[in-house]
Amino acid sequence: MIILGIDPGIAIVGYSIIECNGNKFNAIDYGAIRTDADTLFPDRIKIIYDKLIEIIDKYNPEDLAVEELFFNKNVKTAIKVGQARGVEILAAVNKGLKIYEYTPLQIKQAVVGYGRAEKAQVQEMVKVLLNLKEKPKPDDVADALAVAICHGSSLKFKESFRMK
Amino acid sequence: MIILGIDPGIAIVGYSIIECNGNKFNAIDYGAIRTDADTLFPDRIKIIYDKLIEIIDKYNPEDLAVEELFFNKNVKTAIKVGQARGVEILAAVNKGLKIYEYTPLQIKQAVVGYGRAEKAQVQEMVKVLLNLKEKPKPDDVADALAVAICHGSSLKFKESFRMK
Repeated sequence: MIILGIDPGIAIVGYSIIECNGNKFNAIDYGAIRTDADTLFPDRIKIIYDKLIEIIDKYNPEDLAVEELFFNKNVKTAIKVGQARGVEILAAVNKGLKIYEYTPLQIKQAVVGYGRAEKAQVQEMVKVLLNLKEKPKPDDVADALAVAICHGSSLKFKESFRMK
Repeated sequence: MIILGIDPGIAIVGYSIIECNGNKFNAIDYGAIRTDADTLFPDRIKIIYDKLIEIIDKYNPEDLAVEELFFNKNVKTAIKVGQARGVEILAAVNKGLKIYEYTPLQIKQAVVGYGRAEKAQVQEMVKVLLNLKEKPKPDDVADALAVAICHGSSLKFKESFRMK
C-alpha cells in the first residue's frame, strides 16, 4: 500500500510517499513544497494544492497521514497554518484518499517506541527504518516520513485514526 | 461587477452574490452552505469546496470578499474554522477570482458608517441597501452580504484590501 505523509505548513510543507508491506517500509519520494512570504496568501495555497495534486497523480497513494496541529499561544499562526492544512487535506480528499491524523505523541510512539522521544531520535529512526543514506532534511520532510511510517504501522487499527 | 461574499465557517458558510454598479447594489443570490457535525471533517470541507465551485460557475463573480477571522481564546476552534476558510479561499483562487479581506470593523464602517455598530444595525442596513423584503437569516448570510457590500463600496481603494 502507498501512503502519502504530510507535515502541514504554509512556508514549508513536508511530504512523503512511502510503500508499506507489513512491517517493511520503502521511501519512494519525499521533499518539501516551499512558498515565499512575499507571495499573496491565496496564491501560496494554490501553489501547495496544485503541487500536491501533481504528487498524488504521480504516485496514486491510497491514504493520507497527516500530523495534528497544536498551538498553545499564537492564534494568528494557528489560523494561517490551519488554512493551509485545510487545503492540503482537500487535495487528498478531492483525489479520493482516506484521511488519517496522528498526534506528535502517537508518531513518536510508533517510530521510536517512546512518546516523549527527541526530534533527533525520530529523525535517526526514520533514516534506519527507511534505509536512507542521510537524515532527511529539513525537519518538515523527516516529519512527513515519520507520520507516514506511523500510519503504516497502525494499519491494523486503521479506523481509530480516521480524521473526524 | 459581480462580487462573491463569504462569511467563513465549517458548520455554516454564509455566501452572497451581489452586483455592484457605482453605489447601487443588487442581491442576485445568497444563502448558507451547511455541513453536519456527524460527517467526517475531510468530507465536510469537500462539500463546501464543491458547492462554492458550483456557485462561482453559475454566477462568474470577479472578486471574493471574505471576512477576516478573529479568535481570542479557543485555538482548537481557530484551527478548525481556519482549515475551512483555507478551502473556501482556494475555491475562489482556483476559479481565478481576486481575494480581498476585511475586518469586522471595516465591514461595519462601510455598511452602517460606524465601526462599532451592533449586529442588528448591520442586518437592517443590509436589508435597506439591497432592498430586501426581510432581514436575511441566519446571521452568517447577512454577514456574507455585508462583506460583499463592503467590498463594493471600497472598489476605488481596491488594492489596499487585497489579501496578503
